[in-house]
Amino acid sequence: MINVQFAALPERWASYEAPLRTAFQNAGLEVDLRLDHAPSEVDYVVYAPNSDLQDFSHHSRCKAVLSLWAGVEKITGNSTLTMPLCRMVDPGLTAGMVEWVTGHVLRYHLDIDRSLAEQDRWNPIVPPLARERPITMLGLGALGTACAQALVGLGFPVTGWSRSAKDIPNINCLHGEDGLKEALRTAEIVILLLPDTAATENTLDAETLAMLPKGARIINPGRGPLVDDDALLAALETGQIGHATLDVFRVEPLPQDHPYWGHPNVTVTPHIAAETRASTAAEVIAENLRRGEAGEPFLHQVDRQLGY
Amino acid sequence: MINVQFAALPERWASYEAPLRTAFQNAGLEVDLRLDHAPSEVDYVVYAPNSDLQDFSHHSRCKAVLSLWAGVEKITGNSTLTMPLCRMVDPGLTAGMVEWVTGHVLRYHLDIDRSLAEQDRWNPIVPPLARERPITMLGLGALGTACAQALVGLGFPVTGWSRSAKDIPNINCLHGEDGLKEALRTAEIVILLLPDTAATENTLDAETLAMLPKGARIINPGRGPLVDDDALLAALETGQIGHATLDVFRVEPLPQDHPYWGHPNVTVTPHIAAETRASTAAEVIAENLRRGEAGEPFLHQVDRQLGY
Repeated sequence: MINVQFAALPERWASYEAPLRTAFQNAGLEVDLRLDHAPSEVDYVVYAPNSDLQDFSHHSRCKAVLSLWAGVEKITGNSTLTMPLCRMVDPGLTAGMVEWVTGHVLRYHLDIDRSLAEQDRWNPIVPPLARERPITMLGLGALGTACAQALVGLGFPVTGWSRSAKDIPNINCLHGEDGLKEALRTAEIVILLLPDTAATENTLDAETLAMLPKGARIINPGRGPLVDDDALLAALETGQIGHATLDVFRVEPLPQDHPYWGHPNVTVTPHIAAETRASTAAEVIAENLRRGEAGEPFLHQVDRQLGY
Repeated sequence: MINVQFAALPERWASYEAPLRTAFQNAGLEVDLRLDHAPSEVDYVVYAPNSDLQDFSHHSRCKAVLSLWAGVEKITGNSTLTMPLCRMVDPGLTAGMVEWVTGHVLRYHLDIDRSLAEQDRWNPIVPPLARERPITMLGLGALGTACAQALVGLGFPVTGWSRSAKDIPNINCLHGEDGLKEALRTAEIVILLLPDTAATENTLDAETLAMLPKGARIINPGRGPLVDDDALLAALETGQIGHATLDVFRVEPLPQDHPYWGHPNVTVTPHIAAETRASTAAEVIAENLRRGEAGEPFLHQVDRQLGY
């Protein structure tokens, strides 16, 4: 019997219990899944970083902490978390992110906001083709790459930028500081899907926002701290940035008095771009349990130096 | 020397002259391209159906009329037009249509209109995945097939319906009257890309709109007469249809007093989904001229019985 503790906000138990039991059973694993194992008897923790569980020092035999979230920056600095930590790379989350990013890119590309606003006059303006609309993806991890490939499939020329060098078919891959400058220079739409680390904080600040073509549009479904909010508000004021669609923020929910709310050139969405889907996520958790028991390497294990 | 007459609204000459000359030259054709050849000396007409030229009875040696438009229903009944008539199947037009259709499908799928309206509160509602959103494409010609394939690429389950039987990979292809009923039964979003013929008029009327699941959404980038406007307005009133995005109308521009304008559950776009792009269209025209001169069959020749 494998003891698995479910440690997330209590309301998540209702959505995850049945999918997890099904996935464990389908993987042939005998699991005692509970909210309340004694810490010293826990073999694995299924974990959401906003859980009450923050002290892992008594989880003495725990073989792995399996995050339900893709972003683990809230816990990589936890010194009691000494066992392997795995991020969630949920195919359902990836699919949802691709749909959200593609939808908002096409919304900008087709100028759908203007269409919706002009419901009193016939004003035919034909947008350029996707092939004439350069897009830059900052971040080429699992999510950034999947989104970039979907955009390439629709005909957009996509430049990708990442910390370390990558080579992905049909994407112009750049890296490093000079690469960032080049990636921003021609981008009519910039998408942020970088991990949230000390090195990526304020990737878009006054200096880098100024490298973009005038009127560029920003889409941030990644992490709030990737953007210097004051610099973005200033760039929206001058028109250097034409519009921003932001799904993530330094403080969530976004405080009611934040200048992004109601800003004519900002769309706020409430952290919905990357939502883990219980059924597909449960299958990933079960596969990692199976690997742990079989002594195989875990999927998506976090490199604690890099922070993701 | 091949005499080619350009017959379209005068303002189109500015956008088409240079691309046509380039395309003819690239195809190795010696062409005298003008607005004003004597009718009896014209070898080919490059044609827009809203041109002043409606009487072809003196175009005695004309080998083909090459339409710049995909839709030729305005001229298939012209009894003086006895020479071969070719529709435009412009790769640029197809790309633009795919982008417009995909953008508006994702707009509905993600409920972007609600996101844009809720710019004063944090209200996280996560949409289903594309794989859980059945879409039906009415019409599986060049445009319908290209759009259906793009939607399949994003993960949507797509049912396609056409007059005659088709077999297209990854699309559930139906045809005939029973097929239409089945195609509409599960469609959360319906897209109209049928040709405008006597047989397709009012494809969506009170009876077929009632076959859809309650709250279904309609996207019409095809032709205005495919929809019975009164029936659609009634179905929007009862909530049987949740929303409609209409790009084409029986009368264009849509008259200012039409109930579609300002309707809370209708988005009007000004016939922008299918726009021929001069550079790519000119290459198609040049290829048909080359074929005509070489005695090869024309591309996209209209079947005058079928009307498309």
